[in-house]
Amino acid sequence: MVTLGLIGCGVISDSYLTGAARSALVKMKSVADLRPEAAQSQAEKYGVQAVSIDALLADPEIDIVIEAVGGTKPARGFVATALQHGKSVVTPNKELIAKHGNELLNIAAEAHVDLMFEGAVGGGIPIIRPMKESLAGDRIQRVVGIVNGTTNFILTAMSQEGRDFSDVLKDAQSKGYAEADPTADVEGYDAMYKIAILSSIAYGSHIDVNQIYHEGITKISADDIRYAKQLGYEIKLLAIGARSNGALDLRVHPTFIPKEHPLASVNGVFNAIFVQGDPIGDLMFYGRGAGSGPTGSAVVGDVIDCARNINMNAAGRVPCRCYQKLPIQPISEVTTRYYLRTRVVDQPGVMGKMATALGNHGVSLISVFQPKQEDGQQGSGVAEIVWITHLVKESYMQAALETLAGLPEVVEIANLIRVEGA
Amino acid sequence: MVTLGLIGCGVISDSYLTGAARSALVKMKSVADLRPEAAQSQAEKYGVQAVSIDALLADPEIDIVIEAVGGTKPARGFVATALQHGKSVVTPNKELIAKHGNELLNIAAEAHVDLMFEGAVGGGIPIIRPMKESLAGDRIQRVVGIVNGTTNFILTAMSQEGRDFSDVLKDAQSKGYAEADPTADVEGYDAMYKIAILSSIAYGSHIDVNQIYHEGITKISADDIRYAKQLGYEIKLLAIGARSNGALDLRVHPTFIPKEHPLASVNGVFNAIFVQGDPIGDLMFYGRGAGSGPTGSAVVGDVIDCARNINMNAAGRVPCRCYQKLPIQPISEVTTRYYLRTRVVDQPGVMGKMATALGNHGVSLISVFQPKQEDGQQGSGVAEIVWITHLVKESYMQAALETLAGLPEVVEIANLIRVEGA
Repeated sequence: MVTLGLIGCGVISDSYLTGAARSALVKMKSVADLRPEAAQSQAEKYGVQAVSIDALLADPEIDIVIEAVGGTKPARGFVATALQHGKSVVTPNKELIAKHGNELLNIAAEAHVDLMFEGAVGGGIPIIRPMKESLAGDRIQRVVGIVNGTTNFILTAMSQEGRDFSDVLKDAQSKGYAEADPTADVEGYDAMYKIAILSSIAYGSHIDVNQIYHEGITKISADDIRYAKQLGYEIKLLAIGARSNGALDLRVHPTFIPKEHPLASVNGVFNAIFVQGDPIGDLMFYGRGAGSGPTGSAVVGDVIDCARNINMNAAGRVPCRCYQKLPIQPISEVTTRYYLRTRVVDQPGVMGKMATALGNHGVSLISVFQPKQEDGQQGSGVAEIVWITHLVKESYMQAALETLAGLPEVVEIANLIRVEGA
Repeated sequence: MVTLGLIGCGVISDSYLTGAARSALVKMKSVADLRPEAAQSQAEKYGVQAVSIDALLADPEIDIVIEAVGGTKPARGFVATALQHGKSVVTPNKELIAKHGNELLNIAAEAHVDLMFEGAVGGGIPIIRPMKESLAGDRIQRVVGIVNGTTNFILTAMSQEGRDFSDVLKDAQSKGYAEADPTADVEGYDAMYKIAILSSIAYGSHIDVNQIYHEGITKISADDIRYAKQLGYEIKLLAIGARSNGALDLRVHPTFIPKEHPLASVNGVFNAIFVQGDPIGDLMFYGRGAGSGPTGSAVVGDVIDCARNINMNAAGRVPCRCYQKLPIQPISEVTTRYYLRTRVVDQPGVMGKMATALGNHGVSLISVFQPKQEDGQQGSGVAEIVWITHLVKESYMQAALETLAGLPEVVEIANLIRVEGA
């Protein structure tokens, strides 16, 4: 029997405690929490002992520590100490792994123990282990994920019900799908941590999260979603990690994807990760991206994996392979297609003048259309023009936007959204 | 360096040989084939040695054998001998694992070596390892797969182009997506082997493939597919393995699934496996289900996993857990919904008479509709009636069909297709 300790006795800890109790391979011994009364309460409920965090980390009987404190401070220190004391660690803490995974994996390797974090990306979706093990013989080219359930819930509701962002956000908050402070989700930080982790595994590279471009969904309007549908697209917050000429193209932003793409029909709080590799071709992993059940499944699966390694004296059998430090392509160098929504003075010749300005900056166009004006807009003297471009470098596009904004007929650059996957 | 041998030098063996050459962890030493000239040719191409199968199996330097002979005889003997000689074995041979996996896994366990077979189900889709390891803490309730690319290619073409089965089959044969003798695919044998393997892992049970109900797609007509779409469904060949009151409900058959279900949009040669478990919830794994690239990815992934175990002296670290022999529910006891297409004498009162007969057998109805007759059928005096039932036990449904067939107004029971997933 392999012995466990749990640090962090919040709501989700029930799933770890019940999951551990179901496995014949492991036995929970101690729980700890920054708030001793939380540990005491779980200890009584599950018939284990409540101890201080220091005592748990120092207990030589404990083989595996589950870190469920969250955040980076003080979790980073707890995990480092546990590893240094020869304990394997399981954590679903995406921010910790994205920011300090490299350092912690080095400590784990030196101590000949495991650090596993399947729950850090995609909730219960098996993705870390398949990438590290099943695809060990592949060269991964591209990882594209819907990895944040909150924003996917919001975008799905906006798409299916035609509602506005702020309206749906309030709804999501009241249902518990969004936090009171939704910044980490709606501004793309959460997805940024997750694509950092996925990319570091996919490309064997250390990744500095601060270099990842990220943009949230707060500027997406009901109009953008309506136009996307008219053009055959859905808007999703995508986390993208791809090889690009010896560098990595890493970014998080709202994206137009064609309705036929497997990611386009991933709705509500579901997550999915699309992987392209050689020789595997296209793969997609789909499931619930958050919540106590899925995260519990991931953590307990990792605990059992650690326990099997301990029983076989094989901890560290799947090493971290992030030896490289591949450069991260600046967003200005990224080449993609764009959806551009502009508000202009409603008079003849404006479309032509703008198209010429775009062309002068090397932006060529797939389609241009002028949506029918809604009742409230008619007679305002202002019209919308929606543009879809061919592939163009971001820096050219930004220069073109500056020129457009300077035209007297252009009232507003209302939105710019990248288009991928066709 | 871990040393490999390969038995079976057919077309797909290139993917194993190139894949092995890319890994720093393993080295291919010898290849063998029932046709020595095939082994000789691959040996020259990849700079390894060609030997007899007996010599390869007896070579003490070889740590891992890849079995790529296919079928059960003589592959079963080769695998058993390799395992008994202390070699780990990797095979994508679904028929072998479905029929003799239990026996071979026992031999592997006694010899403290690994037998891995990720490529046997879903081509390169990671599904065996995630189920055995990532979901080790879950109780799986239901596995539903589109696991045969040939039949999915045919059904997709029928659905998208309105064509008939025999017409599309010829097309698939000419494109190499279907064999000259397509029986194993179109009659559901291939899917049957795969659901046997998935279910044995999901439920920890030994499964006799001969007890799995299987039905192919040869009876599906363009009319069935058209009606399915009108009712909001797609027709897919599903392989189902579910818990059912302490028994297992295992079956392969064409199935109506709602358009909104994630499996409904899995098209062409793609495969997908949908898993429901506790606490994980719903998961889906999607990718290319066949072909040299995907199968090569799966086999090389397994080889690297075996090699890591050998280097750590940890072979057998993920044991077979198929200790049980759960009963398999006879198809007559299975409860599901049905689509029933009947051809009847075109006169008033027939629908009522038939509905009464169905009701007398305990079959209650969700919907009944009489499709508009095609040009060629008009004036024939025969009309079609399409029925969708509520949940009903198969034996009741079959008894009801017998009664319907005996009614003078019923010209033909044209098709009966099960409806799942809503």
